Amino acid sequence: MKVGFIGLGRMGEGMAGCLIRAGHQLVVYNRTASRADPLVAQGATVATDPADACEGEIVITMLADDAAVAGVVFGDRGVLGHLKPGAVHLSMSSISVELSERLLAEHTKASQAFVSSPVFGRPHVAASGQLNILMAGAPAACKTCLPLLESMGQKVFPLGERPSDANLVKLSGNFLIAAAIEALAESVALVSKAGIDRKTFVDIMNTTLFGSPIYKIYGSLIAEEKYEPAGFAAPLGLKDVRLALAAAEHLRVPMPLGALLRERFITLLAQGGENLDWAALGLVAARDSGQARTKS
Amino acid sequence: MKVGFIGLGRMGEGMAGCLIRAGHQLVVYNRTASRADPLVAQGATVATDPADACEGEIVITMLADDAAVAGVVFGDRGVLGHLKPGAVHLSMSSISVELSERLLAEHTKASQAFVSSPVFGRPHVAASGQLNILMAGAPAACKTCLPLLESMGQKVFPLGERPSDANLVKLSGNFLIAAAIEALAESVALVSKAGIDRKTFVDIMNTTLFGSPIYKIYGSLIAEEKYEPAGFAAPLGLKDVRLALAAAEHLRVPMPLGALLRERFITLLAQGGENLDWAALGLVAARDSGQARTKS
Amino acid sequence: MKVGFIGLGRMGEGMAGCLIRAGHQLVVYNRTASRADPLVAQGATVATDPADACEGEIVITMLADDAAVAGVVFGDRGVLGHLKPGAVHLSMSSISVELSERLLAEHTKASQAFVSSPVFGRPHVAASGQLNILMAGAPAACKTCLPLLESMGQKVFPLGERPSDANLVKLSGNFLIAAAIEALAESVALVSKAGIDRKTFVDIMNTTLFGSPIYKIYGSLIAEEKYEPAGFAAPLGLKDVRLALAAAEHLRVPMPLGALLRERFITLLAQGGENLDWAALGLVAARDSGQARTKS
Amino acid sequence: MKVGFIGLGRMGEGMAGCLIRAGHQLVVYNRTASRADPLVAQGATVATDPADACEGEIVITMLADDAAVAGVVFGDRGVLGHLKPGAVHLSMSSISVELSERLLAEHTKASQAFVSSPVFGRPHVAASGQLNILMAGAPAACKTCLPLLESMGQKVFPLGERPSDANLVKLSGNFLIAAAIEALAESVALVSKAGIDRKTFVDIMNTTLFGSPIYKIYGSLIAEEKYEPAGFAAPLGLKDVRLALAAAEHLRVPMPLGALLRERFITLLAQGGENLDWAALGLVAARDSGQARTKS
Repeated sequence: MKVGFIGLGRMGEGMAGCLIRAGHQLVVYNRTASRADPLVAQGATVATDPADACEGEIVITMLADDAAVAGVVFGDRGVLGHLKPGAVHLSMSSISVELSERLLAEHTKASQAFVSSPVFGRPHVAASGQLNILMAGAPAACKTCLPLLESMGQKVFPLGERPSDANLVKLSGNFLIAAAIEALAESVALVSKAGIDRKTFVDIMNTTLFGSPIYKIYGSLIAEEKYEPAGFAAPLGLKDVRLALAAAEHLRVPMPLGALLRERFITLLAQGGENLDWAALGLVAARDSGQARTKS
Repeated sequence: MKVGFIGLGRMGEGMAGCLIRAGHQLVVYNRTASRADPLVAQGATVATDPADACEGEIVITMLADDAAVAGVVFGDRGVLGHLKPGAVHLSMSSISVELSERLLAEHTKASQAFVSSPVFGRPHVAASGQLNILMAGAPAACKTCLPLLESMGQKVFPLGERPSDANLVKLSGNFLIAAAIEALAESVALVSKAGIDRKTFVDIMNTTLFGSPIYKIYGSLIAEEKYEPAGFAAPLGLKDVRLALAAAEHLRVPMPLGALLRERFITLLAQGGENLDWAALGLVAARDSGQARTKS
Repeated sequence: MKVGFIGLGRMGEGMAGCLIRAGHQLVVYNRTASRADPLVAQGATVATDPADACEGEIVITMLADDAAVAGVVFGDRGVLGHLKPGAVHLSMSSISVELSERLLAEHTKASQAFVSSPVFGRPHVAASGQLNILMAGAPAACKTCLPLLESMGQKVFPLGERPSDANLVKLSGNFLIAAAIEALAESVALVSKAGIDRKTFVDIMNTTLFGSPIYKIYGSLIAEEKYEPAGFAAPLGLKDVRLALAAAEHLRVPMPLGALLRERFITLLAQGGENLDWAALGLVAARDSGQARTKS
Repeated sequence: MKVGFIGLGRMGEGMAGCLIRAGHQLVVYNRTASRADPLVAQGATVATDPADACEGEIVITMLADDAAVAGVVFGDRGVLGHLKPGAVHLSMSSISVELSERLLAEHTKASQAFVSSPVFGRPHVAASGQLNILMAGAPAACKTCLPLLESMGQKVFPLGERPSDANLVKLSGNFLIAAAIEALAESVALVSKAGIDRKTFVDIMNTTLFGSPIYKIYGSLIAEEKYEPAGFAAPLGLKDVRLALAAAEHLRVPMPLGALLRERFITLLAQGGENLDWAALGLVAARDSGQARTKS
């Protein structure tokens, strides 16, 4: 299948690689063109603008945020103006429910299809084709996308016909992770100030109660105060919590824990944490409780 | 070994049964004496008061809260006044750090030993001897207790010489569970009000991110709004969060998520939830967001 | 002076009346034209679109929110396209810091001046010319506006040259009021459930500690559970808190109390409070604590 | 009237002075005896222990907290054991609802009367006899106390027959003040980080909206970052918020703003604020938002 792929960040690069290895013919576009080089070496063609990547049946977008997606879709030489009638825009970025709804409306008006497929997984998971992938959109369009998604993920979770549902589930998942991080941050600060070994505490929690990848990864980062380099940076954590809260406000769903997380991320950023992993909520809890960082 | 066992609630009964099956000679005491009958049938002797249960090398307490433990220890015919010098009080209840410290001080003054061993696990886990058990106290006393603990649990986690450390770890574990419940409650309320199937959401979260017993159990209870009968009742959840916050205040550790959980439990209780499982924070989130309960 | 006035809601109508009584020649515009009738009876001229109201030295906007202001300014036949070079757009609505900054930039580009003057006061205060009025903008433009502002208010508070500063102070003021409402709501729920007379409590607080119009007004509304008709409706309260939080996020200032207020307003709206006064946070506190409303 | 007075801290000293000036015969007791010297110079007699101060019709206690009151009442040579039948214990300290209920029960059992009269006002207000005083208890006992209370206060607010109601109103009043402090702290942090003058902001708020002594005093302390010397120290603020929350938990009244205040005070204390005024919540907001203190 001839596939356009827009957005070659750390996630997109790995995902595009999976598609090439699965035998698809890729036309890739990235604002910083040099990031396409490794893919070109594997057989991809480079597009000079988003429109150039829209000649096939499907164009995939995998970008940082709403603004980036809106830029490549609604801008000059954008996806909306150049995708063929009947072709599919497969959006895999973590974007807002609001933008997802707007994309559905605009693509429908242009006789194009829109499928939303945000993913769970870090860059190395993307590179190995082991992502967990959500999928929502019109059945025929989803059917077109499915083989591609299966090339990029270990499992695809269909969520019905409304694309924005997949975005809301993705945001809710990130909310759950952020909540787990904050809970770990506060409890580690507590036992640590009492003089109990932080790693022992986290190990016991993982052995006895949680046994979950999320608790293992973030428990370990917080216990070891290892916040750099960022696997998922704090400003992205703030962004996703904010988007979840915006969706919740629109639906009239109070989320007090979400509100707390938002303020904690802002505190982290106010104190110089722009480049730290979102696990660095552990740093906020340590500072708030008057504990010096044990590692620099 | 001759062992006293005080407190035959749903947890204590199962734990005492494990000890009998392991060949220990048990003298059991419970305020409501009839609860001892099944254990007597297995070979236990009944004590008429706490003092009667204190004739051996070890007396175990497994009671509901601080007041109950203080009652059997400090009251007339209590443990403190009747345990032999050198014998061990093995406290397995979820009690406060403060009471744990007081017990250590008083038992030490009376030349008795004190070991703190709170447990993780529900009643059916206790009955099958599969609890996870924390242990902190003087090394010699811990050594005396270890075979008993191994009869009751799948694993024993030593936490050093200060008994109250085991209590703080237990309280922190329950705080982590309550935080997970609240996070699930809010996110389920959000996706549910958006029209997304609650169970599908919880299944995806467990498959993709968490894969943890805690998220499976509580995600399922909240998705199905199954809050009765209570496996662990809401007032006990409130109690443990309050004890964690009290320890945190004493240590000067702010826990904003803990504070939020406390208020949510109080809201639940104010609205008639005294007999519901602590998972019923899901009910608070549903009501707050204007969603009628789908099941009665 | 020849003055355009756009927006004849309950606030705008009173303010425009003050200007007419002060001898200014008014050209008024409102989307629902009939609301202009009383002012026409006093001598005002009716404009058929925003552009028609832009022929003089000053055009005033007094509208509900960002969207309404952006509509009349940036739309076809809008203020931006028709205000004369050197003339002043005097914005008196409660809008976001972000829109205020955009208005400054766009008007400057069009060689027009922009002054921001949000107000404190309810409709009856506006009608009597007793508003408290903030003012920020270029000195020459402020000087042009000052006589008009003095016709509408008891006092004008200059806040320097950056228009958005006046908007941030206005939003911060509304945040302070919302915080006072929530504090009253919670404390009234507490003493009320203890059986203490709600009005006695509020009276004592006003006599002994606060003696402030805000505490008197809102204490009384909450004690008497008088949430209709809305003087300032709950959705507007939510909007202003959200705008304060957005400005705070942009500046990296955590506001945990602001976050709490946002969730409380959402709870109120989720439970049917769209048409209630923002004092109805008192209703949320009453419900959360399991207290039936004493008045229907 | 012959009056015992126990507790000569900064508040008690001023209050006792008012009683002497009003012509009452005072027997004073303080743990640190030398604090009685100025009152002795005015005609008071010194008691050597609490019992010595209990020979008349009334004994007043004005102490720092529950522990201090319980000490002088229930200890050896304490008030409970030595007050005459029919005499009144007039408690003016800020104590918990729980202790107030216990005092009523114990004094009643001992055929003594118990009146609760906590006060609003700082030390210099106490010295000038201008306190605002709450009063609750049996009518006859209140009648006995009234002339004394009127010597110490500008106004006495009767609150019925249940003494603990006066304590709950006092705690609720301090909750309202703490809430106002936090609201000011957050809004000052916001406008300050935006570059707006802090004092101008506070002045406008006081002129336009609040005009309340509380907002004037605390707005000024926060704007000027003047947190020493403490008029009312942060640990006392934490104590009163904690007592309000304890009463609220007992009554099943969630107070999310109260919970937030508790955590903010703990943060302040964790970061070295034990000796600062409770207005130093302003310092927490400044630090959280990454703003250096402008004054040392």
